[in-house]
Amino acid sequence: MLSMQDFSCHNLRTTRLWLNSCDIILVMHVVSIDQFDTKLLKEIFDQADNFQKLLDDKDSKKKLSEKHSGKQICTLFYEPSTRTRLSFETAALKLGIGVVSTESAGQFSSASKGETIEDTMQVLNQYGFDAIIIRHPETGAVKRAANVSQTPVINAGDGKGEHPTQALLDAYTIRKEFGRLDNLRIVMGGDLKYGRTVRSLARLLSQYPNNHIIFVSIPKLMMDQDIKNLLTSSGTTFEESTNLEQALSDSNVVYWTRLQKERLEKPGDFDSAGFDLIKESIKNLPLDAIILHPLPRVDEIAVEIDSDPRAKYFQQAGNGLYIRMALLDKIAGES
Amino acid sequence: MLSMQDFSCHNLRTTRLWLNSCDIILVMHVVSIDQFDTKLLKEIFDQADNFQKLLDDKDSKKKLSEKHSGKQICTLFYEPSTRTRLSFETAALKLGIGVVSTESAGQFSSASKGETIEDTMQVLNQYGFDAIIIRHPETGAVKRAANVSQTPVINAGDGKGEHPTQALLDAYTIRKEFGRLDNLRIVMGGDLKYGRTVRSLARLLSQYPNNHIIFVSIPKLMMDQDIKNLLTSSGTTFEESTNLEQALSDSNVVYWTRLQKERLEKPGDFDSAGFDLIKESIKNLPLDAIILHPLPRVDEIAVEIDSDPRAKYFQQAGNGLYIRMALLDKIAGES
Amino acid sequence: MLSMQDFSCHNLRTTRLWLNSCDIILVMHVVSIDQFDTKLLKEIFDQADNFQKLLDDKDSKKKLSEKHSGKQICTLFYEPSTRTRLSFETAALKLGIGVVSTESAGQFSSASKGETIEDTMQVLNQYGFDAIIIRHPETGAVKRAANVSQTPVINAGDGKGEHPTQALLDAYTIRKEFGRLDNLRIVMGGDLKYGRTVRSLARLLSQYPNNHIIFVSIPKLMMDQDIKNLLTSSGTTFEESTNLEQALSDSNVVYWTRLQKERLEKPGDFDSAGFDLIKESIKNLPLDAIILHPLPRVDEIAVEIDSDPRAKYFQQAGNGLYIRMALLDKIAGES
Repeated sequence: MLSMQDFSCHNLRTTRLWLNSCDIILVMHVVSIDQFDTKLLKEIFDQADNFQKLLDDKDSKKKLSEKHSGKQICTLFYEPSTRTRLSFETAALKLGIGVVSTESAGQFSSASKGETIEDTMQVLNQYGFDAIIIRHPETGAVKRAANVSQTPVINAGDGKGEHPTQALLDAYTIRKEFGRLDNLRIVMGGDLKYGRTVRSLARLLSQYPNNHIIFVSIPKLMMDQDIKNLLTSSGTTFEESTNLEQALSDSNVVYWTRLQKERLEKPGDFDSAGFDLIKESIKNLPLDAIILHPLPRVDEIAVEIDSDPRAKYFQQAGNGLYIRMALLDKIAGES
Repeated sequence: MLSMQDFSCHNLRTTRLWLNSCDIILVMHVVSIDQFDTKLLKEIFDQADNFQKLLDDKDSKKKLSEKHSGKQICTLFYEPSTRTRLSFETAALKLGIGVVSTESAGQFSSASKGETIEDTMQVLNQYGFDAIIIRHPETGAVKRAANVSQTPVINAGDGKGEHPTQALLDAYTIRKEFGRLDNLRIVMGGDLKYGRTVRSLARLLSQYPNNHIIFVSIPKLMMDQDIKNLLTSSGTTFEESTNLEQALSDSNVVYWTRLQKERLEKPGDFDSAGFDLIKESIKNLPLDAIILHPLPRVDEIAVEIDSDPRAKYFQQAGNGLYIRMALLDKIAGES
Repeated sequence: MLSMQDFSCHNLRTTRLWLNSCDIILVMHVVSIDQFDTKLLKEIFDQADNFQKLLDDKDSKKKLSEKHSGKQICTLFYEPSTRTRLSFETAALKLGIGVVSTESAGQFSSASKGETIEDTMQVLNQYGFDAIIIRHPETGAVKRAANVSQTPVINAGDGKGEHPTQALLDAYTIRKEFGRLDNLRIVMGGDLKYGRTVRSLARLLSQYPNNHIIFVSIPKLMMDQDIKNLLTSSGTTFEESTNLEQALSDSNVVYWTRLQKERLEKPGDFDSAGFDLIKESIKNLPLDAIILHPLPRVDEIAVEIDSDPRAKYFQQAGNGLYIRMALLDKIAGES
């Protein structure tokens, strides 16, 4: 029998140590953005840059696609996600990693017969995957899955919980455009209370010095106190505002999310339309600033902005490919 | 920013020219059967013949499966289609092209959160696919997708609109059996008004000389005037008939489709059963004629006909594999 | 035309012989566990052992993943099954076989338009797959599919009918633990009347000498007479019991299944809880015995038993990978 003990650790090699006879098996799960310190972030981002370069060259692209041949991952998705699933699977294929996939495990798998995610993991652990990528509607479900898994698990989003590769690609996009993740003025707008991406990005940025965050939302959807405390304790300054134009006027990064109108008490109470980005509202945004959004968007960024050179949300989504390649490569490289 | 302009062109290199600085990037979408002239058709059909031959030989089959290794396509299906999706994916694998796939994008993807197909394409464009194969329930949706895509798009059927690879495999099957696409007598039967496959095939055949088409249906499901005008202007003769047996008696090709009985005003008004092909109804069909059907069939061709040597509808479906290989090879070869 | 004739045969090369001109093409379907005699079982199990060993070594694992490159299978699943589908697909990838897949063919395919499984097979037969793996909710559907298929079909479960690879992995797990499939005392418990896995395993074990089976259930869910007759005629002894603890006290193998409580007449009539395995109920089970379960389980084996060294149900599921590799390898090796 295995005796199991929890350890905290400062990088990908995470939270658990299996003691089996005298062997120590470190299982590298990616469950939370908090596992990533600046050293590990740099390593991942550098590798992502490297992979993008390799993919630009025909020959090195082909060679890369054989790097991990003979390995496989499983994408276990309990709810819809084109973007995340397809980019993980494409990332795998571009590294020569085979993919088996379930698009809607909640509906089509043993889960519909009452199997727990722990049992599902026990079974999938037998198939020799190099990683299991999980999307699940319940907060904490992926952590529970990782707790019983000897195969590395990557969290591809668990409800209102975490979506660490999204935070990675967000930060990576900023680094790509500015060459740094410090000394930045970042506007975060929309639904700051329920949006997991803004919360994760704020936590990640708090690791770097001299950032200043401007939260723009309506009072009832403002950022929660826990994140504000974290920022304070890390020395990251921030302010809160409901004045979009002013906030944009001297920022480097605008990270926009959907302000879900159904959360507003009375539609007449507040002009939520003021929180949709249109050409007019970004007229004071500096020319070298960038506009990000985790996507999908509905109305909160007007299509007329897509052709603005500062709009980087589609490239941002694309950066997810390189980030996921870097992660898969790191994980598969250790198996 | 890109300045974009529409051009018409006579082959796969379609409708759009991107002008970016001084570079001209031709994006090769396959949206409509009208993009294919006889020269391009010949090229595709010859390559399809070639691939079939290569697959027959163990060694060349294996070699072929490495031809495009390191490349990937995405199959983005917003509605059910086993045949089309699986044959595209199999075609890709037989050429060494990796596949990421979504079986029911409408239900399981960001589309369910309100994302437009244009935004979905903007994201998928970032993943470096060699082609994106799209099936969509709305007429024109694939053209809209192609309009914003720098990755080649292949239309795998958009509602009542187009399904160009079906028309290609239909024509390819005829060429395979007769060695030509001219000087043929073709019976087209069933639902000619709403069936997209008969409309596309008629347009394709109008490019070849001396064909004669006999439309067999009930008056309210007869071929629309636009196709009849096209046939007239191209010099392709045609006639309309409700007499199935007579129409079959001297034809080369019978292209049968389902006459949807729910479209008939009153079930008693018309004997729709007369439009189901049975042994009796093909007794006058020449021995060297062939029977085609786009499949799936329900009752409109009796199972007793499957063993008739003139029944070619299953081989016809199989020809879709070679046609899709030829298309993917052409498109991937240019990337 | 093909003239077709049925033959019975004693191994994988099954039930049909195609006579086409002078060629004889033997199509190797896997429809029923009854196709497997002890000689063939040994061959499959030895190969499964071999593959497990090869996968343990990095280099031979990689080499194995190229063994059948250029070949493809299709997984055609008409109903949910994570475990079975993913393990077939993983098995294929580990042998270098490409996979095209449909996760819920009943909902997403031409079947929803009324296509018969026979027509679906006729089409899939054109795509040059090395095998087609089918899961279907109707008993006998896979046999019907195989009857019209020239591509090898593997039954991945058809309703209350057969699920031969489950029986194979069950028996394989026993052989792995005891080094033999004879001279064993096997307790089979739970729903013996409707459970297809216990029925198949009993039939398989009846081929080996000196086994003794103890059926443990409530009277109305006891094993049917047909299996009992088969056991008798093969010389396999058995008994029936409702006393779980006593049955376990001198057994080698406990094969447990879910006793579906909704089948009990009145919940008060019978203490079905007595049929859930808990620590207390296995206290007399010999130390070298093993506990198996086809999974997924709900409550019928308490989670507290998972850490008992005799609990082998997760490894049992994992053995499905090696068994399916052995089968696919045998089938693909002949194409």
